[in-house]
Amino acid sequence: MADDPLNAYTALQKTFAADIGGAANRKAIGLIYSACLSFLKKSGREPLVSLIAGKKYFAFAQGKKVSRAVNSELFVGDAREWTAFDAALQRKKLSSFSPERITQIIYSVAISFCAFIDLTKEGDQKTPGTFFEYLISHLFAWRLGVNPTRRIQVLNLDMETNLPTDFIFNLGKDRPKFHLPIKTSTRERVIQVWAHQRVLDGVFGTGRFLGTPVILAETKTDRRKREVIEICLPDQWRIYQMHIAQLKRIYYLDVPATYGKLNEVFPPINVTSFGQFFFEADKLSA
Amino acid sequence: MADDPLNAYTALQKTFAADIGGAANRKAIGLIYSACLSFLKKSGREPLVSLIAGKKYFAFAQGKKVSRAVNSELFVGDAREWTAFDAALQRKKLSSFSPERITQIIYSVAISFCAFIDLTKEGDQKTPGTFFEYLISHLFAWRLGVNPTRRIQVLNLDMETNLPTDFIFNLGKDRPKFHLPIKTSTRERVIQVWAHQRVLDGVFGTGRFLGTPVILAETKTDRRKREVIEICLPDQWRIYQMHIAQLKRIYYLDVPATYGKLNEVFPPINVTSFGQFFFEADKLSA
Repeated sequence: MADDPLNAYTALQKTFAADIGGAANRKAIGLIYSACLSFLKKSGREPLVSLIAGKKYFAFAQGKKVSRAVNSELFVGDAREWTAFDAALQRKKLSSFSPERITQIIYSVAISFCAFIDLTKEGDQKTPGTFFEYLISHLFAWRLGVNPTRRIQVLNLDMETNLPTDFIFNLGKDRPKFHLPIKTSTRERVIQVWAHQRVLDGVFGTGRFLGTPVILAETKTDRRKREVIEICLPDQWRIYQMHIAQLKRIYYLDVPATYGKLNEVFPPINVTSFGQFFFEADKLSA
Repeated sequence: MADDPLNAYTALQKTFAADIGGAANRKAIGLIYSACLSFLKKSGREPLVSLIAGKKYFAFAQGKKVSRAVNSELFVGDAREWTAFDAALQRKKLSSFSPERITQIIYSVAISFCAFIDLTKEGDQKTPGTFFEYLISHLFAWRLGVNPTRRIQVLNLDMETNLPTDFIFNLGKDRPKFHLPIKTSTRERVIQVWAHQRVLDGVFGTGRFLGTPVILAETKTDRRKREVIEICLPDQWRIYQMHIAQLKRIYYLDVPATYGKLNEVFPPINVTSFGQFFFEADKLSA
């Protein structure tokens, strides 16, 4: 259980693609999580000043290194929670789990690995991003009962090509297909998510793909002042949703306060916590 | 003349925004160029193996550091060429310059600064990118006779907001407005350019903004094998042009062979060298 997190991660990398939604990947993710928790238990915790109303953050610290901000209410840090969740997924019975608890568990797995990399590598954004893709695409595949692809064939009159995409889940005829971009944070690059949705709408017809990006958080820490803020561009999101394409849901593990309010404007953009997906996935095509 | 390129660049940074299309910026760019040339004359040149038909590349080298690939036919390396170009722009008479010569001059200025940064900094993509933005936005502003803005007010029923954009040139009523993204290379991030054009089309109406991105090159060097390739995604460009928005021109300083061929497919995407812009700018709205 107390293996090196990076060894456990390398093992997942090797076998991940074989069956993305399969139980072996969930077991491997559990090993990474408990290895990260063992590592983080030996690290210190530093309080951060949260400038976000109603949210508290801290950072893991080791020597001179400080991790990204960790949401105190979402972080569980108990490997048994993942074990219980794993067992429930295995039995295909999630009724004893609330959306909030699921969000906490998945957030804790994701942020533990991010914090481990923050404390052991220099400026490595790619490894946490790839792990987060593994974690979320596995859970999506489990929930939808089908493995994703990352390219899609385009036949268009005299044109035939393969378009690289984010994760695409094809549930079959007369059922929705899902378009799943996965990001640890978005900033100004988020316009790509809407643009890819637009391409899918244009090539295959509007409504065929449900766009459901999953994002970890939008926090940014001022290292010197130890202050945490959320970088949000809600007006730009509204313009993208009105003028580029329609995303069905935007799931966060740590929902930014400002984006949560987009549910209340008109036309609304549906921003919610990822735990909800497990209970509403079948209703999204309605 | 033999000032440090970085000092000359810092001086440009301080004064650039005051009058983007003004002669002072062109003079400052000339100082940076000659300082870079002095620096590069003291560096070695290493031949590269070009895997691109009809193009030759080399790299500047100093100690263990090697610059990005430089196109041998486009690189002039003569500060007097910029001086002559500067004088012609000052007189507003470009008739003695061919589009090819203008492309060579601007390419040389841009790639000299890139090579200087490659040889003196570690993994710094931002500084060359910003300098390239200065260079191109200045020349665009000179040619169009108006300075650009980088945000645009959106009034949409009960919504009022400022949208950050690439460079926007407003030529006034009954004349085209230009949407100018500037990139040293694009790769998969290029979808952003089409997405921003789509937003402008959607918010203000199709045809109001002419999308004319300017890109330096798409070369990639394999450090170990010393081989140069161009990374191009022509099929994806066609899909973006058909399904996201219409770009009017895509200007390159070093036109990638594969993208040049997009002029010949139907529907065509107009990809050409940036020198052409100086002679066709008035005709682009037709």
